[in-house]
Amino acid sequence: MAGTTVEVYDTTLRDGAQQEGMNLSVADKMAIAPLLDELGVGVIEGGWPGAVPKDTEFFALVNKELSFRHAQFAAFGMTRRAGASAGSDPQVRALLDSEAPIITLVAKSDIRHAERALRVSGDENLAMIEETVAFLVGEGRRVVLDAEHFFDGYRYDPEYAIRALLAGEAGGASTLCLCDTNGGMLPDDVTRIVTDVRARTTAQLGMHAHNDSGCAVANSMAAVAAGATHVQGCVNGYGERTGNADLVAVAANLEIKRGMIALKGDGLAESTRIAHTISEITNIAPFARQPYVGASAFAHKAGLHASAIKVDPDLYQHTQPELVGNDMRMLVSEMAGRASIELKGREMGFELSDQPDVLKRVMDRVKNAEAQGYTFDAADASFELLLRWELGQAPQYWQVESWRVRVSSAPGNPNDADAEAVIKLRAGGGQRFVTVGEGNGPVNALDHALRTALAGAYPEIGRFELTDFKVRIMDASHGTDAVTRVLITTVDTVTGMQWRTVGVGPNMVEASYEALTDSLFYGLLKAEATPNP
Amino acid sequence: MAGTTVEVYDTTLRDGAQQEGMNLSVADKMAIAPLLDELGVGVIEGGWPGAVPKDTEFFALVNKELSFRHAQFAAFGMTRRAGASAGSDPQVRALLDSEAPIITLVAKSDIRHAERALRVSGDENLAMIEETVAFLVGEGRRVVLDAEHFFDGYRYDPEYAIRALLAGEAGGASTLCLCDTNGGMLPDDVTRIVTDVRARTTAQLGMHAHNDSGCAVANSMAAVAAGATHVQGCVNGYGERTGNADLVAVAANLEIKRGMIALKGDGLAESTRIAHTISEITNIAPFARQPYVGASAFAHKAGLHASAIKVDPDLYQHTQPELVGNDMRMLVSEMAGRASIELKGREMGFELSDQPDVLKRVMDRVKNAEAQGYTFDAADASFELLLRWELGQAPQYWQVESWRVRVSSAPGNPNDADAEAVIKLRAGGGQRFVTVGEGNGPVNALDHALRTALAGAYPEIGRFELTDFKVRIMDASHGTDAVTRVLITTVDTVTGMQWRTVGVGPNMVEASYEALTDSLFYGLLKAEATPNP
Repeated sequence: MAGTTVEVYDTTLRDGAQQEGMNLSVADKMAIAPLLDELGVGVIEGGWPGAVPKDTEFFALVNKELSFRHAQFAAFGMTRRAGASAGSDPQVRALLDSEAPIITLVAKSDIRHAERALRVSGDENLAMIEETVAFLVGEGRRVVLDAEHFFDGYRYDPEYAIRALLAGEAGGASTLCLCDTNGGMLPDDVTRIVTDVRARTTAQLGMHAHNDSGCAVANSMAAVAAGATHVQGCVNGYGERTGNADLVAVAANLEIKRGMIALKGDGLAESTRIAHTISEITNIAPFARQPYVGASAFAHKAGLHASAIKVDPDLYQHTQPELVGNDMRMLVSEMAGRASIELKGREMGFELSDQPDVLKRVMDRVKNAEAQGYTFDAADASFELLLRWELGQAPQYWQVESWRVRVSSAPGNPNDADAEAVIKLRAGGGQRFVTVGEGNGPVNALDHALRTALAGAYPEIGRFELTDFKVRIMDASHGTDAVTRVLITTVDTVTGMQWRTVGVGPNMVEASYEALTDSLFYGLLKAEATPNP
Repeated sequence: MAGTTVEVYDTTLRDGAQQEGMNLSVADKMAIAPLLDELGVGVIEGGWPGAVPKDTEFFALVNKELSFRHAQFAAFGMTRRAGASAGSDPQVRALLDSEAPIITLVAKSDIRHAERALRVSGDENLAMIEETVAFLVGEGRRVVLDAEHFFDGYRYDPEYAIRALLAGEAGGASTLCLCDTNGGMLPDDVTRIVTDVRARTTAQLGMHAHNDSGCAVANSMAAVAAGATHVQGCVNGYGERTGNADLVAVAANLEIKRGMIALKGDGLAESTRIAHTISEITNIAPFARQPYVGASAFAHKAGLHASAIKVDPDLYQHTQPELVGNDMRMLVSEMAGRASIELKGREMGFELSDQPDVLKRVMDRVKNAEAQGYTFDAADASFELLLRWELGQAPQYWQVESWRVRVSSAPGNPNDADAEAVIKLRAGGGQRFVTVGEGNGPVNALDHALRTALAGAYPEIGRFELTDFKVRIMDASHGTDAVTRVLITTVDTVTGMQWRTVGVGPNMVEASYEALTDSLFYGLLKAEATPNP
C-alpha cells in the first residue's frame, strides 16, 4: 500500500459550511480556496451553483479571478428530477454553466431515502442516476457519484445500494464515493462493506465520512486499506453535527503512517499554518486538541515526562511536529514542576538551574497566579515578564497614576453607544501625560489613550499592533459576576515578532488593562527601547 | 461479542488533568468524582497520592466523605525504585496508604524507555514490575498494570514488551493495560498487536488510547474487538496533547453499536448532562462537535435535509439522541431556508406555513442579522423575539431613554478598578426611573441598574438569574476594534426554564446591553408579566 496515490477531495466550502455557527460569505470562500490549493488537495468542491445564489456567484468569480496550482474545481449538485430528461433540468444545467471540470452528483443509494424522501420508485432513482451521470459525462465533465447514506442503505438492502453505484458506473462516473452520511459506522463495518463493493466494480472508490461515532478519520483509513483511493473531508473537521472527516489528519496518517501519496507539493508541512488561517476566516475558534495541527497537539505538561523529554524528545511524540508545520511546546503549569520551568526559562535565554531560590519563587508565583485564573500556557510573554521581575531584570518604562473609561448610549438612541478613556501617567523623564482616547468599546478606547500618552516618550509603540483579543469568562456559574481572563496577541510590524499576554480580574476592563499594558511593556523590552520613566 | 461486559476505567482526574489549560483543585475533583460514579464507570482513578500533595489530600477526603454506588476507586503510581525493595519505597507505601482498593502501576514496556528515561537495565525493569505488583497484591489490592508506551515498544522489540506484561501477570496483576502513550497508532496496528498479546496471556487485557492520530475511539473499539475487556479514557476526551480516548463515545459505541455492557445503571442516558456539568467544573469550554454529547451532535442545518427530516427523522441520525440524553435540534440559519424556519417556528408554537409573507420577512431579517455577526443557532430566545416582532406579537414592557457606564481605576492603585452604571427608562405606566448600579465590571453594573429600574414595575425580574455570559470577538484580525458577539444564558429560578439571547456590536458593552435587555424581555414574556410600559 505504501506508494499508492490517494486523491484528497476537500468539501470545506460545501459540506463543511453546514456546521453550526458557520456562515461563509463569497469573500470568505474566495479567501479559503487558495489556501486549500496551497494545502495541496486534489479537488476543491466549491458549493452548489444554481441552488444556492451565493455559490453561483462564487463559481463565476473563481473562473474570473483564481487559478489553482494543484487543485481541480468541483461543483456539487443533485441527479435530475423524476420524470424529466437530465438536459432539461435547470439544476443540472446550472452545474454545466458553472464550468467546473468535475461535477459531484449526490444520489440516493438507500432505497428508503429514494422512496420516502425523494418519493420515487427504486427503478426511477436508478434511471435518474445513470442518465444524469451520462449526460454530464457526454458534456465532457468528470463525474464523482456521492452515494448518500450508502452504508446505512447497504445494511438495509445491500443489493439496491450496489445497484445505485453500478448505475453511476454505467453512466460513466469516474468515482463512486461511499458516504456515511449519518456518521454512525465503525471501522470494521467500513472494512467489510468496502471490501464487498471493491469486488463488484472497477471504478475508483471513495469515502465520505462523518464523525458521529468518533471514527471519521479511522473510517477513512479503513476504506483506503480496503481499496478506496479517494477521500473526502474538511479542513479542521468542519461539518454538520459532529463534522466531516478531518482532512489534514487523514492526509497526515496516509502520508506519515502509511507512506502513501496524498497532498501535493509540500502542503503537509504547511498544514498547521493553513488550518489556523482558515479558522481565522471561518471565525470558528480552533480546537486546541485537534490531531497534528492543534495548538496542544505537541504540548507537554507532565512533570514526569518533562525531565525525560530533555533526554530524548522523539520517545515522547508520535511523529515529528515539523512534518505538519507544528512545534513541540513545554507548558508552564503548576503540574509541571521545576523541570518544565527550567526548560521554558532556557528556551527564553535564562539559565535557572544554578538559581534554585529563583526557581522556587517563580514556581510559587505561577501556582498562585494559576489559582486566580491566569494561564501561562498561552501567554509566553507574561511568563517572561514574571520571570524577569523575579530575576530583577525588568526595567521601568512608565508609571500610571489612574485611568477611567466611560461608555454611554448615543443621545436619543439607547441601541448605539460610544466609549471614551482617560489615562494619567508619567513617562519621558517624569513628564506627566493626561490623554484621552475614543474607541468603539472600552478596551479600544483605553488602548488609544495609552498609546497617545506613551508615543511621545517611546515612538516604538507605533510599531505594535494588536492582532487578537480573546475574552474568556472563567466561572460560568456566576454570569456577569464571573472572573474574566483576557488574552491579547500583539505583533511588531517592523520585526514581525508576535507575543501574547494575559490579564485576569473580576472586571473585564481591568483584566484587559493588565494584558494591554503588559503587551506594550514586552514590546518595548524586545524593541530594546531605553527606559525613561 | 454482544453481551460481553467491558470494564470502563475513568482517568479524567489523573491523565485528563494533564490537558493544557486544565487545573483541577481538590474541590473540583470532589465535585467531579460523584458525577463519574453517576455516569456508571467501573473505576475512577483519582490521582497519584504520595507524589502530588493535592492528590494525597483528595484521597483522604474521598475516604472520609464520599461513597460510590457503582465505581471502585483507584490510585495511580509507579513501580518501585531500582535496587530497593517495593515495601521500602515511600512512593509505593503512599499508594497503600491511600486505601484505594485498586492500584494502577505505570510500568515501562518499551526497552528504550527503561534504558534511556529510567536508566535501568531491561532485567531490572522486569524485576521492578513483578516485585511491585506482587507486593501490592500481597497487601490485598487489585493491581492494574499500565504498560506505558506498549505499542511503540512492541513495534521496536515485541519480545521485551510482552515480557514486561508477563512480569506483571507473574506478580498477580488482574489487568494488563496496553497504553498507546504517544497516541500514534491506527486501528489495524491495534488489531494486529492486541491479537498477538491475547494469545500470550490469560490475564484481562485493557486499552489506554490517546488521540494523536485522530483514532483514540476507534483504537479502543479495535482493542475490544481483539479481546480487551477494559478500556481507559476521559470524559470529554480530556488529556495531554490531543487528549485521551473520549470515554462516553467509547461506551456509547460499545453499548449502542455493539450491544455490549459498559456503563452501569442508566448512566448512558444521563451522559450529555454529566459531560456538560463536568465541563463547567473543569472550566474547559465544551466542544460542540463532540460525538454523542456535543451541543451540535444532533443539530441539523441543511435546507435539503430539513424538509426530509419532517418525513422521517430516524433516516437522518445515526442513533436516537435520547439514548445519550441529547436532543435533535433544527438550526435557524441563512443556509436552512424556509423549511427550517417553518419547523423552528412550529417548535415554538407559531404556524407559519400559511403566512408566506411573514416567512419571507423573517428569512430576510435572519440573513441580514447573520451577515452582521448574529447567530441564532445558539440563541433560540432571540430568534423567538425576532419572530414575534414580525408577527406583531411582542408587547412593550419598557422604554429606555439612555444609559452610561463608567469604569475607573481605584484611587492610588491603577491595578484595581470598579464600575458604575446609570440607566434612565420608563415603565409602570409611564413612570420614569433613573437608577444606578455598581458592579465588578461594566456589564455587571448595567445588569444591576437595569434590574433596579424594572423591579418596581415587574417583580418577576427577581426570579431571573444570569447563569452564563459568553463573549466572542468576531473578527480577530482587528484586535480591540473587532465586532463582539455576546451570548447570555438566563434561568427562571421558579420554573427552571433556561433561555439564551444574543447581542452584537463593535462595542462589547453595547452588545451586552442588547443581549441583557432581550433576556429580561423574554423572561417577562414567558412569565406572562402584564405589559405596563
